Amino acid sequence: MEFRPILSHESEIPLYRQLFEQIAARIRSGEMARGERLPPTRELAGLLGLNRTTVSAAYEMLEAQGLIAGQVGRGSFVTGGPAVRSGVDWTAILPHSSAASAFPREEISFVMSRPSRDLFPLDDFRASCAAVLERQDLADILQLGSPSGYEPLRRRLLEEARRQQLAAPGDDLLITNGCQQALDLIGRVLLRPGDPVAIEDPLYPGLKNLLAGMGAQLIGIPVGPNGIDTAHLERVLRERPRFLVVTSNFQNPTGATMPLEARRTLIDSARAAGVPVVENDAYGDLRYVGDPIPAIKQLDDGGGTVLLRSFSKVSFPGLRVGWALGPKPLIDRLRQAKEAADLHTDQLSQAVLLEFVESGRLEAHRRRVLEAGAVRLAATLEGCRHWMPRGTRWTHPEGGMNMWVRLPEPLDASELLARAREEGVAYLPGRYFTVSRHEPGALRLSFVGLPPEQIATGLAALGRVVVAELERASTVSEPASAMV
Amino acid sequence: MEFRPILSHESEIPLYRQLFEQIAARIRSGEMARGERLPPTRELAGLLGLNRTTVSAAYEMLEAQGLIAGQVGRGSFVTGGPAVRSGVDWTAILPHSSAASAFPREEISFVMSRPSRDLFPLDDFRASCAAVLERQDLADILQLGSPSGYEPLRRRLLEEARRQQLAAPGDDLLITNGCQQALDLIGRVLLRPGDPVAIEDPLYPGLKNLLAGMGAQLIGIPVGPNGIDTAHLERVLRERPRFLVVTSNFQNPTGATMPLEARRTLIDSARAAGVPVVENDAYGDLRYVGDPIPAIKQLDDGGGTVLLRSFSKVSFPGLRVGWALGPKPLIDRLRQAKEAADLHTDQLSQAVLLEFVESGRLEAHRRRVLEAGAVRLAATLEGCRHWMPRGTRWTHPEGGMNMWVRLPEPLDASELLARAREEGVAYLPGRYFTVSRHEPGALRLSFVGLPPEQIATGLAALGRVVVAELERASTVSEPASAMV
Repeated sequence: MEFRPILSHESEIPLYRQLFEQIAARIRSGEMARGERLPPTRELAGLLGLNRTTVSAAYEMLEAQGLIAGQVGRGSFVTGGPAVRSGVDWTAILPHSSAASAFPREEISFVMSRPSRDLFPLDDFRASCAAVLERQDLADILQLGSPSGYEPLRRRLLEEARRQQLAAPGDDLLITNGCQQALDLIGRVLLRPGDPVAIEDPLYPGLKNLLAGMGAQLIGIPVGPNGIDTAHLERVLRERPRFLVVTSNFQNPTGATMPLEARRTLIDSARAAGVPVVENDAYGDLRYVGDPIPAIKQLDDGGGTVLLRSFSKVSFPGLRVGWALGPKPLIDRLRQAKEAADLHTDQLSQAVLLEFVESGRLEAHRRRVLEAGAVRLAATLEGCRHWMPRGTRWTHPEGGMNMWVRLPEPLDASELLARAREEGVAYLPGRYFTVSRHEPGALRLSFVGLPPEQIATGLAALGRVVVAELERASTVSEPASAMV
Repeated sequence: MEFRPILSHESEIPLYRQLFEQIAARIRSGEMARGERLPPTRELAGLLGLNRTTVSAAYEMLEAQGLIAGQVGRGSFVTGGPAVRSGVDWTAILPHSSAASAFPREEISFVMSRPSRDLFPLDDFRASCAAVLERQDLADILQLGSPSGYEPLRRRLLEEARRQQLAAPGDDLLITNGCQQALDLIGRVLLRPGDPVAIEDPLYPGLKNLLAGMGAQLIGIPVGPNGIDTAHLERVLRERPRFLVVTSNFQNPTGATMPLEARRTLIDSARAAGVPVVENDAYGDLRYVGDPIPAIKQLDDGGGTVLLRSFSKVSFPGLRVGWALGPKPLIDRLRQAKEAADLHTDQLSQAVLLEFVESGRLEAHRRRVLEAGAVRLAATLEGCRHWMPRGTRWTHPEGGMNMWVRLPEPLDASELLARAREEGVAYLPGRYFTVSRHEPGALRLSFVGLPPEQIATGLAALGRVVVAELERASTVSEPASAMV
């Protein structure tokens, strides 16, 4: 086999699957002929810098498709080949369906951190739309708007923030396309390539990739059960990062929440260092258990914090509406950047969400989401307790969408994923979230998108895979290991 | 008068008005006392680097408000002052209403390049929304989407582009928040600070400011009646700009359209220089007279062009949906940048616009917009012919929203604006559009937002101001000019 597969570690498609598809394509095209011998899994793994289980998983899929066959002691050989009788090679034309047949079951996916589609209150949404369509200012909604946002929504959010004592007298508010755009605008306004930025480690890829893409030098601060390590933070702040991004509630991926004292310590440290704080609070409205804690923005009377919130997580992520609340000089600059980036946020969605809020429908929906979230969180904790072997550790979120699991050594969550998917369950391995401290055994479970029974079934399957791999790792000695 | 007003040349508020408001505030607060003498207009103009007519206009407003009075031969004195009888100074509290009273008439504004609000087909829009609310995939529309765009809309646009032979076999399409975001993403993907970029001169501020904000070195190519000067372009291309942004149809601000041959020449030059072409075609659907010309994208079989289009100008600018069509490798990178910037474009508006297209309502609306546009364009041309003095020149757009007017020398369109507003008409002076060739006499008339009778009234008023100022400039000798 002379060809060298091109594998992307950044892709959402697992490595074993990428490898499978590329070898399968060569067999189907005839570039790898019937009878040709495939390299041993260990050799190919070494050549490609992969774990051997990844290559094994790809070979198993090839075998399941009838493209190769393994012979004990001799290795694997190409058995399939190009369709010779028909002019159309449907297997090649329909690669996804055929590949999917290797996983006959419906997959239970803990991959996506997003709300449950089944809980969307479609009739309430329709009623809010209908009300907007009757508004006197409908033509204004459809006309070019202000970079600040749809003014009735902006005013409402600002008034609410003042009532909640989140907004200081000199504060202003800018509507953005969700929290992601607020973070992007902050980066555009504050960052030059090479600037250090302090972030949480682990951290969700959306923010990590955004800042890395801007050429920032990422400084990770470890996240523990109580959010970022404030002692570590203090050391990092001495390097004078341009700003610190911190998730006060239900951090993604760990689910951790900062206690009140840690928030106060953080504010004092940041103020002493003169470093602005970006409080990324997309999940704050989703607390299932325990009492709410005042926002960093509220506690910081020094004006050093900008707060980011969003409708996406608590209502409809397909409608891209969030906001940034902070000192007017910063918001003025963000507004300029917003206007350059895309003029303004879509006004139809802003008007519909305002109506959704003002009619009380958002609050009613939020109550249902909180009830469902509490049940799903409990099912996830229960599933971990019941199915995960001793030595597995996991966080205990009080809200949000995500939980962080650490498998016992020597398991590697990336390697284990192929096996897990064979058993019909998927998650996102820890490496997607790593800033600088790689934890091979870590993985994220995004639990709110799944009904409790699927959570239980999925965790049972995952537990079986973990137990089996753990046994194999402890009992099977790799025959070739002495030769390396 | 010891204070020095802080004036912003970038503000949308005219300079004379900024000056008026700052002096008025000081008089009302008592910081400038009754009886205090104001500096002569010429002196203050010299001090602030303003034209004398700007200062005169501010003084006239102060006089109209009863805050100052002029005495022949002695200058102007403060006559108004802080309200002493009442505890509340309502005039100061309501600065905008009181200032507006200096312009008692409803202003006829040629300032904004946007569609006419009165033409919005609200019932058709409501019907499209209602149809979306009944869609089977409503929950998918509300769920987190793809950075590529709402797939049914994306597919429809791509198929249409293929039918129109705009899309080459290797092309892909990305949905963006209007053309502005597509331009932003292209800048993010292609530009490093200091990189040269070739653009039209004059050019609308949204694009000019975006590229300048990214640190690009702007190289302007003069725009004539037939769009950019292709001979000049050839010279500029030798400087190897990172890309060229060109408006094929109804350029903003000039209204110019490139003829077929100029498009072909442009493609050949860009290809020879290896410079990518960004065809910014927000207005292409709005042709009121003459025959359509094939897009640069369609003519360029070398794959060097990316085409940007939008629903904003032909339907509802408050819904932010446009797209970029170009070679897959570029679109792939734009998609990554899009995901980092704001995950994806709002899906509710994408679904509503798809329905608006598929139901035939967009095409019906477009026909009405074209009819209205033709009438408004004719009214603008007729108004210029009828009211503008000899020596005034203007472009003859065949579509779009804007016309470019050059006043006879020595008139300055920025200086003239204060007078024009006193007469109840407003426009955007040429300096907002200047890249490197400043034309003091130029101004933009955005005509589609106004009904024909207002266009006629507005141009009659503008014509009177131009004629009067021209007479004044040619007959009145400035008494102080010999002393300078």
